[in-house]
Amino acid sequence: MPLHLGAAWYPEHWPEARWAEDVKLMRDAGLTVVRVAEFAWSSLEPREGAFDFGWLERAIALAADHGLAVVIGTPTAAPPAWMTQAYPDVLAVNADGRPATHGARCHYDVTSERYLAFCRRIAEKLAICFGRDARVIGWQIDNEYNTVSYSEGARRAFQDWLRRCYGSLDALNAAWATAYWSQTYSDWSQIPLPIQGAHGFGQPHNPGLRLKWRQFITEAYRRFQLNQIEVIRAHAMPSQWITHNFMGFFDGFDHYVLSADLDFASWDQYYPAGHLDFARDSAGHDLTRGFKRKNFWLIETQPGSVNWAPINSAQDRGETRAAAWNAVAHGAEAVCYWQWRNAPNGQEQYHGSLIAPDGNPRPVYEEISRIGREFQQAGHLFDGATVEASVALLHSYDDRWALDFQRHHADFDPLQYLGSFYRPLSRRNIAMDILSTRAALDGYKLVIAAPHILDEAIAGELIRFVAGGGHLVLGVRSGMKDGNNALLRQRQPALLQDIAGAHVEEYYALREPVPIHAVTSGRRKRGATPALPDGSAHIWAEWLVPHPGAQVLMTYGAANGYLNGQAAVTMKPHASGGCVYYLGAWLDDALQDALMGWIVARAGVEPVLPGLPAGVHAMRRGEAYVLINDTEAKSVTLPWRAKDHLSGRTAKRFMLGPWDVIVATRV
Amino acid sequence: MPLHLGAAWYPEHWPEARWAEDVKLMRDAGLTVVRVAEFAWSSLEPREGAFDFGWLERAIALAADHGLAVVIGTPTAAPPAWMTQAYPDVLAVNADGRPATHGARCHYDVTSERYLAFCRRIAEKLAICFGRDARVIGWQIDNEYNTVSYSEGARRAFQDWLRRCYGSLDALNAAWATAYWSQTYSDWSQIPLPIQGAHGFGQPHNPGLRLKWRQFITEAYRRFQLNQIEVIRAHAMPSQWITHNFMGFFDGFDHYVLSADLDFASWDQYYPAGHLDFARDSAGHDLTRGFKRKNFWLIETQPGSVNWAPINSAQDRGETRAAAWNAVAHGAEAVCYWQWRNAPNGQEQYHGSLIAPDGNPRPVYEEISRIGREFQQAGHLFDGATVEASVALLHSYDDRWALDFQRHHADFDPLQYLGSFYRPLSRRNIAMDILSTRAALDGYKLVIAAPHILDEAIAGELIRFVAGGGHLVLGVRSGMKDGNNALLRQRQPALLQDIAGAHVEEYYALREPVPIHAVTSGRRKRGATPALPDGSAHIWAEWLVPHPGAQVLMTYGAANGYLNGQAAVTMKPHASGGCVYYLGAWLDDALQDALMGWIVARAGVEPVLPGLPAGVHAMRRGEAYVLINDTEAKSVTLPWRAKDHLSGRTAKRFMLGPWDVIVATRV
Amino acid sequence: MPLHLGAAWYPEHWPEARWAEDVKLMRDAGLTVVRVAEFAWSSLEPREGAFDFGWLERAIALAADHGLAVVIGTPTAAPPAWMTQAYPDVLAVNADGRPATHGARCHYDVTSERYLAFCRRIAEKLAICFGRDARVIGWQIDNEYNTVSYSEGARRAFQDWLRRCYGSLDALNAAWATAYWSQTYSDWSQIPLPIQGAHGFGQPHNPGLRLKWRQFITEAYRRFQLNQIEVIRAHAMPSQWITHNFMGFFDGFDHYVLSADLDFASWDQYYPAGHLDFARDSAGHDLTRGFKRKNFWLIETQPGSVNWAPINSAQDRGETRAAAWNAVAHGAEAVCYWQWRNAPNGQEQYHGSLIAPDGNPRPVYEEISRIGREFQQAGHLFDGATVEASVALLHSYDDRWALDFQRHHADFDPLQYLGSFYRPLSRRNIAMDILSTRAALDGYKLVIAAPHILDEAIAGELIRFVAGGGHLVLGVRSGMKDGNNALLRQRQPALLQDIAGAHVEEYYALREPVPIHAVTSGRRKRGATPALPDGSAHIWAEWLVPHPGAQVLMTYGAANGYLNGQAAVTMKPHASGGCVYYLGAWLDDALQDALMGWIVARAGVEPVLPGLPAGVHAMRRGEAYVLINDTEAKSVTLPWRAKDHLSGRTAKRFMLGPWDVIVATRV
Repeated sequence: MPLHLGAAWYPEHWPEARWAEDVKLMRDAGLTVVRVAEFAWSSLEPREGAFDFGWLERAIALAADHGLAVVIGTPTAAPPAWMTQAYPDVLAVNADGRPATHGARCHYDVTSERYLAFCRRIAEKLAICFGRDARVIGWQIDNEYNTVSYSEGARRAFQDWLRRCYGSLDALNAAWATAYWSQTYSDWSQIPLPIQGAHGFGQPHNPGLRLKWRQFITEAYRRFQLNQIEVIRAHAMPSQWITHNFMGFFDGFDHYVLSADLDFASWDQYYPAGHLDFARDSAGHDLTRGFKRKNFWLIETQPGSVNWAPINSAQDRGETRAAAWNAVAHGAEAVCYWQWRNAPNGQEQYHGSLIAPDGNPRPVYEEISRIGREFQQAGHLFDGATVEASVALLHSYDDRWALDFQRHHADFDPLQYLGSFYRPLSRRNIAMDILSTRAALDGYKLVIAAPHILDEAIAGELIRFVAGGGHLVLGVRSGMKDGNNALLRQRQPALLQDIAGAHVEEYYALREPVPIHAVTSGRRKRGATPALPDGSAHIWAEWLVPHPGAQVLMTYGAANGYLNGQAAVTMKPHASGGCVYYLGAWLDDALQDALMGWIVARAGVEPVLPGLPAGVHAMRRGEAYVLINDTEAKSVTLPWRAKDHLSGRTAKRFMLGPWDVIVATRV
Repeated sequence: MPLHLGAAWYPEHWPEARWAEDVKLMRDAGLTVVRVAEFAWSSLEPREGAFDFGWLERAIALAADHGLAVVIGTPTAAPPAWMTQAYPDVLAVNADGRPATHGARCHYDVTSERYLAFCRRIAEKLAICFGRDARVIGWQIDNEYNTVSYSEGARRAFQDWLRRCYGSLDALNAAWATAYWSQTYSDWSQIPLPIQGAHGFGQPHNPGLRLKWRQFITEAYRRFQLNQIEVIRAHAMPSQWITHNFMGFFDGFDHYVLSADLDFASWDQYYPAGHLDFARDSAGHDLTRGFKRKNFWLIETQPGSVNWAPINSAQDRGETRAAAWNAVAHGAEAVCYWQWRNAPNGQEQYHGSLIAPDGNPRPVYEEISRIGREFQQAGHLFDGATVEASVALLHSYDDRWALDFQRHHADFDPLQYLGSFYRPLSRRNIAMDILSTRAALDGYKLVIAAPHILDEAIAGELIRFVAGGGHLVLGVRSGMKDGNNALLRQRQPALLQDIAGAHVEEYYALREPVPIHAVTSGRRKRGATPALPDGSAHIWAEWLVPHPGAQVLMTYGAANGYLNGQAAVTMKPHASGGCVYYLGAWLDDALQDALMGWIVARAGVEPVLPGLPAGVHAMRRGEAYVLINDTEAKSVTLPWRAKDHLSGRTAKRFMLGPWDVIVATRV
Repeated sequence: MPLHLGAAWYPEHWPEARWAEDVKLMRDAGLTVVRVAEFAWSSLEPREGAFDFGWLERAIALAADHGLAVVIGTPTAAPPAWMTQAYPDVLAVNADGRPATHGARCHYDVTSERYLAFCRRIAEKLAICFGRDARVIGWQIDNEYNTVSYSEGARRAFQDWLRRCYGSLDALNAAWATAYWSQTYSDWSQIPLPIQGAHGFGQPHNPGLRLKWRQFITEAYRRFQLNQIEVIRAHAMPSQWITHNFMGFFDGFDHYVLSADLDFASWDQYYPAGHLDFARDSAGHDLTRGFKRKNFWLIETQPGSVNWAPINSAQDRGETRAAAWNAVAHGAEAVCYWQWRNAPNGQEQYHGSLIAPDGNPRPVYEEISRIGREFQQAGHLFDGATVEASVALLHSYDDRWALDFQRHHADFDPLQYLGSFYRPLSRRNIAMDILSTRAALDGYKLVIAAPHILDEAIAGELIRFVAGGGHLVLGVRSGMKDGNNALLRQRQPALLQDIAGAHVEEYYALREPVPIHAVTSGRRKRGATPALPDGSAHIWAEWLVPHPGAQVLMTYGAANGYLNGQAAVTMKPHASGGCVYYLGAWLDDALQDALMGWIVARAGVEPVLPGLPAGVHAMRRGEAYVLINDTEAKSVTLPWRAKDHLSGRTAKRFMLGPWDVIVATRV
């Protein structure tokens, strides 16, 4: 598969006479793929049962004539007005009980059987028409799944799904501890939807019910997606792949579940402030690569600015190119811009695009054309290659939901907490995978996890990993809940107490930071690892009780009286050579950075390239090293002579200006 | 009655096999009382009309076997799902017109006749079963009344209640001045509920209607409460008392009205930041003691943290004990923790408790056990005794509502204004009662009042008080409204002009502070009272016009041109020896402190103990002096030798560490 | 027409016995006019079809006996309860689908045919009764039009109106580009109301639909107003005029459209912070004068404070008088206070008034009495005269709506942007007109415009103006949209590219300010105009590409890479002597001030009076110069000897204290 550069093209917005000019400009910019048909339902089926694919066939033909491969997006994210008017039960119902109105997108009820039937038919018609068309290389199902419906139909479907999950009301009542507040359900039809604020004191619902509701939404979308995949698979030739464009760390559903039915995952990367944050944006790539543990498409990203931020500032000159190469370095098989040209009216008139309202290129077109040339020069280096990492960060939607339902401290953002581990490693140019807490961990040197919801399967894999010599970092709030979001009847981290060599006596949400002291005495100081510094904990602190065989790395200073002098961070070396580090506090950035640096050294984890100046990011994919400089100009010296496939230069030392990129192989 | 230490226990959340361990742990901690059955409706009446009290009888028996007295909370704050499903008219309707859904609590419609019938039946059944049971010492009706329903039924009930209040529409139209904006009602059924934001420009409703709506809610809850009290009284033996757990300064209804039907008032004290604020928290005790002018139960308070604050930080070590003794010192007959142990699921998994998820004590258990031992040692000192105060602060729900409806300055918080008088006196260890503006004032030396709504009865009692030699402090916005929240047709303070010796020419909401100058000349300087300092007014300023015989204590400096040089604070000495101080401005903290110090000196008000260092709080109840230190260690010298009943030491000088407590009697 | 001083009087709030005292106090204060009957519907028609105008006739007679002219406000802003109960379809439906409840005002549905019939009848009855009554000088229709209704009736009316606008669905679909997101409408009845937040992701509606909705509201109010004007005109004698009280810069509808049917425009000036901002408040006068390009009534303004601000602070002593003279100086034919006296209950008890709750004057009464005396002394100077300005600022509701729908930068407030031009000129005492973008521009020296929505008519008038020798300042975001809020298919400023001599290559929302450098070289420096300073751009920056014949005045410094070094401000001199200045960036205040000063000098625009100290504002109306000092005392020297008609002094040099006013004519 070549490295694709592409854009989203909506020929139906324009007179056909304009199309030739557009595809010519695409070809000139080096684009190799276009995505079409997404949102075009009212053009494809203008009246119920009356299909018109002729314009789409002509657009695809024209694209192909100009060397562009085509991806078809099924148009189901935008039901036409004739449908929402004639069959209002296809419309989503908002949390306040009002049905959506026509005029936006994603206003469908994902649980509506009628809507699924309409979607199945249009997808099947498209598959019959284009499933054997070699110009079409793949399919995208719908667009950015996101809407939740609180309709009566959704409620019945939720109740039915719960019945299948639990088998009996007794089991459900026990799992949710419904004796509490007389929540006990004596009939499945009593179970409510978790509508925020509809109760005395605005108390949200039972955490068990809320977790199950998110899982139900996941299942509803999985069914919605499979409904289309089935008919496309039935008619499409095997070379045509099927994907969906996810939205990075968006947590509306469990992306691992939905990815299972796709050939690969794609994502839409937007950075509303207009500037890359390398750790945050790279984590989005690593996450998406982890959905199926394989390369992905960056199927949408912004050329310039978005239009939905408070301040829609644009990328700096050069930043668009840096972002594209960063995506490739992290496993993208394609970089596609949204969108080619703005429709003359509609909600996204101000969104960045390659073509201006007058039909001529915008300034960013030139920079994207450069990317096009570079992909043609250097794209082959990445063919068949992916990122190889010795560190895995575990990630779970169930955990994020459970923690977000009950943060206990307003600033306890599970994603920020994940970032507190990602950033120190990213800064060190250490390659990481972000994986499901349920992933197999073979082959990693270091695993970082904070499995809030813990069951025997998750615990078992971690225990196995440590028994195999792996190093495990355990974070706060681990091992607190079961799969029903109920409290485990053990002190944290529950099933991991043994490998951790410690348990949590009590946890505290911190209003003020608490001092942390590194324990400097005795046997902990082995090897060449430097001494750990002092610092502070904020947001969260757990009073750890070390068990025999564990060492205390850090303790709390003067705090609330309970925490004073107690263990904050412990370490339990295992006979296997493995080791468990228990980080019972959310450490300040500098201390977290120092501690993670100390741990990666102990775990034998190596950076992609050593000795780079700060602000130069290095990734490796196959034989290619991608270096990106995010600020001022710097000089970079590699450990060996290398060829930069973008400039063509061969050297050991390179100068990188702001946003500069090198794609180097060793010579 | 002994000094009780207790907890809320929900045996229905747990297998019966666990109960024995729980009650044993309670006994070990020195607990003497448990509250049960609250919220347990679905366990007590699992299906309509099918009652199961067996488990409750066994739980009570087990508790009694371990020396624990029992309080039964009627379970009516949590209607079961079978009821809300079969009879949706029992559900509260929110201000946006949507009925509550099942799954939280307090989701009932307090005006629903059907719901009252269900409540009456379950309360009566419980009373028949436990009303003669000596192990049960009392009853709590429902839990923390709070929900307002905007149902059609509530609207009809409101209209009926208005008809009884006003007799005729002419009277109502006149009282509310409905000729304004054509609000005139020609039929009772036209009268709307005051739903915020349902109108042009989002204007809230007529202030007269809004005040009456709050009074109607009060009456609805009174009826709701009496409905249960009646059936319990009919079956319970006289020794069993009836209370309700109020929520401190919560203003959803008039607590004086609801307290009238109870044997004593109780309250639930939570401090979400995790730290005591002595003035604020003591004021909550004084307020609750004032509901019936007798001692109260602290029937819920937090062991550790709450779970509903933005940051749920916990008390420091020692603070839980200090808070318990502070409650006792202010008149608590019991201190009960909520809750014993968290249910494994449900909305309050993260709330503080004595027992951890694994069934073993949390760290705070040890501190509460110490309180248990101390209550057994020193509890007898408080038997039959209450707080005696020579200062009364008057408080009115009508006033708070009227002021909150029309703050005129966003920062004019009536509670903060009350606090501006409470704090300077609390800081001086002066005992206070907080009483209804309608309370009899005999026996007080100093009364502090700002009766915004003023009628002849309120004015008459104040006039009588001053005529009897009392000192009266009048605050801003006094004497502005009548009982319909209509403007009095007099200059403020209306009926109090004569005793105040001043009237308000105009009032001003202050955007910027205004300088205040103390008047230092002439006859005001009598006795040993020190000179008053200068300072500033903020938020509110009234231009006072002194009448003959009044003295100007303070004037405004350069301000808006109108206020400049006018009187801000006046004093009118009376022949009775009484005196009225008119504070026409909200003074800055330092000036308010100085002025209140000056006034208490003039009024002959004495502190509980003189000469204590700052941060040491002293209260007296009966013969016992309770001293609590809220910050760093300090040395305290008493005026006489005393015995500390907690340490057993007898001395004149005591060292108090942070959060330390002494319970001393003179020897 | 004399210069009127007046107040809003609601006799129906009071016993008739009080009226005589009120009108006597009015006369004593020098009031010459009262407005009555507004909101009095329930007093005028207490039951359906039963009219009672007797009280109003008596009130008018009493007023006339005391020398007060009368304005009747039709009471239609407050439908009575009997109507809203019997005919709920007259009630507005809020955006969340709930009908308004009774108890506020403006709760009617402006699209309800039934409501229009009721309004027509009451207006006609009043006109029959008072249309030939010489004591009544004019009529005000309704009060402060503002409410939008989202009823089904409104939706049908909107659909019908769209059908009339567009003729065919094909035309509408093309204009709104509805192929985008499958918004395509195949039936008029599918078109939704633009209810915010009712869609996936909370995306607001199509910008075309949203713009048309605002225009539809305008048409609905125009119809609502005409409905009453028709019946009043039919019965009123020609001397009785008809007006409406608009709300300054409020943008709920297009005020130019509604003003077309009135004899003159009026407005209600409130300044919630209690203090005048001369530029902002004078702009309100200039705007209202521009609605019909003639003098106006200040028919409501505040005596003291309002009651709806977060902090309702009052004017300083003297400020009320300064505000009155400022209104007159800008073209007010009357200054009327709202209100005479507060109703004893109802939502506006705390609003400023002349009379206190006890029926006696408030402090502000004395200052208003002084205005009364002064209007009698100096009012004749303004008779038949208006403001003459050589600068016009163009203003458009369509533009403001379109920009507010899609600010792209949260701080891009179109009114703030207008103010960035008004303030530098106001500060220089340059008289301005604020006019519709569709106004004829003959006679102006300088026009300032940023026509975001641009069509041939607007562009044509600007081109004609420049061709006639006029100087034109063009602001950012000019020439971007067409009348359907669709993107123009040209680079900005589209049809104005030629006269501007530049186009926009790209626009950028700025997160951080960008440096701006003045171009100092070469031919730009001609005449005596001083060099322009450097400064910065914020919020918005356009990369201007100058065309041949244009000069670059300012460029961008180091920015995002794209903007660096590009033109930010250009100037294109025309052979006619005209010139177009293109300000492609929102400049910082100091730079904008310097640039506008430079431009007015080039355009030959003169201030009303030269050489005044900062903080002294000078306006001219006819032969009279009004000078107002807004801060500390200052000495003012005029270019000639003058008589101050307020003090009677004749001199060349005058001392002005804070808020002092001079009304001078040259002697």
